[in-house]
Amino acid sequence: MDIIVQKYGGTSVGTPEKIQRVAERILGLEASGMGVVAVVSAMGDTTDRLIDMARKISSNPPRRELDMLLSTGEQISISLLSMAIHERGGRAISMTGLQSGIITDSRYSEAKIREIKTHRILKPLEEGKVVIVAGFQGVSRGAEITTLGRGGSDTTAAALAAALKAKSCEIYTDVDGVFTADPNLVPEAVKLDYISHEEMLELAGSGAQVLHPRAVEIAMKFGLPLKVKPAHSFGSGTTILEGSMLEKVVVTGVTADKDMAKIAIQKVPDRPGIAAKLFGALAREGISVHLIIQSIGEGNVTDVTIVLKREYMERAVEVLRRLSKQLKAQGVIFDANVAEVSIVGSGMVTEPGVAARMFRALAKRKINIELISTSHIRISCVIHKRHVREAVRAIHEDFKLGKLKRRLA
Amino acid sequence: MDIIVQKYGGTSVGTPEKIQRVAERILGLEASGMGVVAVVSAMGDTTDRLIDMARKISSNPPRRELDMLLSTGEQISISLLSMAIHERGGRAISMTGLQSGIITDSRYSEAKIREIKTHRILKPLEEGKVVIVAGFQGVSRGAEITTLGRGGSDTTAAALAAALKAKSCEIYTDVDGVFTADPNLVPEAVKLDYISHEEMLELAGSGAQVLHPRAVEIAMKFGLPLKVKPAHSFGSGTTILEGSMLEKVVVTGVTADKDMAKIAIQKVPDRPGIAAKLFGALAREGISVHLIIQSIGEGNVTDVTIVLKREYMERAVEVLRRLSKQLKAQGVIFDANVAEVSIVGSGMVTEPGVAARMFRALAKRKINIELISTSHIRISCVIHKRHVREAVRAIHEDFKLGKLKRRLA
Repeated sequence: MDIIVQKYGGTSVGTPEKIQRVAERILGLEASGMGVVAVVSAMGDTTDRLIDMARKISSNPPRRELDMLLSTGEQISISLLSMAIHERGGRAISMTGLQSGIITDSRYSEAKIREIKTHRILKPLEEGKVVIVAGFQGVSRGAEITTLGRGGSDTTAAALAAALKAKSCEIYTDVDGVFTADPNLVPEAVKLDYISHEEMLELAGSGAQVLHPRAVEIAMKFGLPLKVKPAHSFGSGTTILEGSMLEKVVVTGVTADKDMAKIAIQKVPDRPGIAAKLFGALAREGISVHLIIQSIGEGNVTDVTIVLKREYMERAVEVLRRLSKQLKAQGVIFDANVAEVSIVGSGMVTEPGVAARMFRALAKRKINIELISTSHIRISCVIHKRHVREAVRAIHEDFKLGKLKRRLA
Repeated sequence: MDIIVQKYGGTSVGTPEKIQRVAERILGLEASGMGVVAVVSAMGDTTDRLIDMARKISSNPPRRELDMLLSTGEQISISLLSMAIHERGGRAISMTGLQSGIITDSRYSEAKIREIKTHRILKPLEEGKVVIVAGFQGVSRGAEITTLGRGGSDTTAAALAAALKAKSCEIYTDVDGVFTADPNLVPEAVKLDYISHEEMLELAGSGAQVLHPRAVEIAMKFGLPLKVKPAHSFGSGTTILEGSMLEKVVVTGVTADKDMAKIAIQKVPDRPGIAAKLFGALAREGISVHLIIQSIGEGNVTDVTIVLKREYMERAVEVLRRLSKQLKAQGVIFDANVAEVSIVGSGMVTEPGVAARMFRALAKRKINIELISTSHIRISCVIHKRHVREAVRAIHEDFKLGKLKRRLA
């Protein structure tokens, strides 16, 4: 039997009416003979409401208990979706993370999936039932309930699709697919029919909200085709494929993350291994860093600048102040008003002058570039937050992304 | 270590503030060196809200999915109560039905507890943690989530107390204890300090809402002392003990169930085994009957009258109409406006004239008695619903229950 894994996010199942529409969509697919596994998030703002309740009781609730609490959100939506399918004469069974055999490590609130015992899901599928799995949650040793943290339901869906050797994994959202830029910023943005895993990973990592990078990583690792599709229309969405299957284009999209911050440790004594030491200290606190730049030392001191998500800023400043004292540096300064604008595209590695074109697009509009970082298929510029919209539109225009058509190779 | 099991009902944990008060009460008890297991119901109207959501999606949701949905209610309250204990510097761990080893049969929505694997609870208790267990739920073969139906959390508490050989089981409620009559009906009603399991069972079965009969049955079977105590004051409540430990009193209380119905099958051919046949057909549909009375046959036909909870009436009428045809009876009539008023007391079996005194109390107020049933320690009269308040007050007055003082033997 061919299996398809579908994931429905919180807005797609936000009301009983929307749940009923999702049930109809699933039954339509099932009628075509496919085995359907539906991964579901908590309804609408359920998770936020549960967190509010916890905050009324504790300023710092134990993570184990928070996972116990939050996992109820998905348990509610899976049971309701199963009821909706039954009500339409279909057959379905809902399953918690524990019941569907999603085994994780024990890091509450940010657990990693270790293994999926697929027989729990395969049996009802073979009996002709739609299997509805609670996203975002798993179980660790001793039947302890864990949650997967950010992007949890996308991750559940991709991991299940890989474990079940599904034909594809469809991520349903409230947008039409992946665009060349955020349509709210750039009205000329066009939907991409195809994109490579690597490009999607860079876009997702650079602020595109549509799909979580963890899910893309899993899909990439297992060569799994991912689709991002609209939940409440029948658009074709965007298919995320292995790069080799796609005609290369220089630049696929432009994206921005305006919730960034910049921290600098000034005048650190310039010894080998300083950057590694800073990285290590931040990683131990669970703080991930986008960019770390060590300026060329003048004399025997150097400045180290770090760019990271703004939500980590306060904790990072605390860690770095401690280190600054230890290392006898001059001190720590920070700026919460920075943004990162990135272009992504599998063709840029072989096409010279792409970076220069991007910098020119910004320079023409007198947008100052504070820092630059690049990967194989991505160039990011750190700029002041107030320029984000203008920068994204400028790049989108100068690279003619509004006319982009991507074909299979 | 001495273990106490406490149960907090939905109103006792209805708001974050009330949860915090419960946390304080538990920590107070724990400070005295006891091991505390707290069984918690869903907050306030959570269960009703979940049922409403299900009804918006399905007129007849599958029971398995309903259990999946409803069990989230207790999971929310256990995690919040655990957070509240942590916030106060205590140590606690919340556990779902599955995690606490409450094994049930597979009858969704009305599961029976088969076994409790106590090691799951004993380990954290020995580590000095308060163990907070989700009431009302368990797990059947294959990690399927079940719920226990009516009185579920009381049942969980009593079963846990028996399995853990607890010193006592305290049921916290929003009333001060068990009264000689419902204080809303009879202002003169007094709180009972002691009552026997058997008397409590009859009171609970006859409309007293304070404690579910299933919990009392378990306590009686295991000789477990039960206490009914007020959740938000420090009253001593009512202690439910083995009958032999108590000074016998003729009548302990008067109670009423005004949500009853009466059904009669008229002119059934009078053959042996008719009552058994009717009972059997109703039991197969899960309908329990309070009373079944076969009138003395006139000629070769007889009338059979059944008294049962009003909620079962429609289904029972359906079953009985079918049977009536099969048996070639004349037909089925029913009346939803009846109530049952009962007196309960361990002394009435040896005291002659108790029934007569009860009938006189009603007759004096011109209240017609439609049917009578008795047990070892209970006499019940079926009357018209409109007379309930007057009947209860009359009996309470004539038996001088307002002056009742019960002592240990």
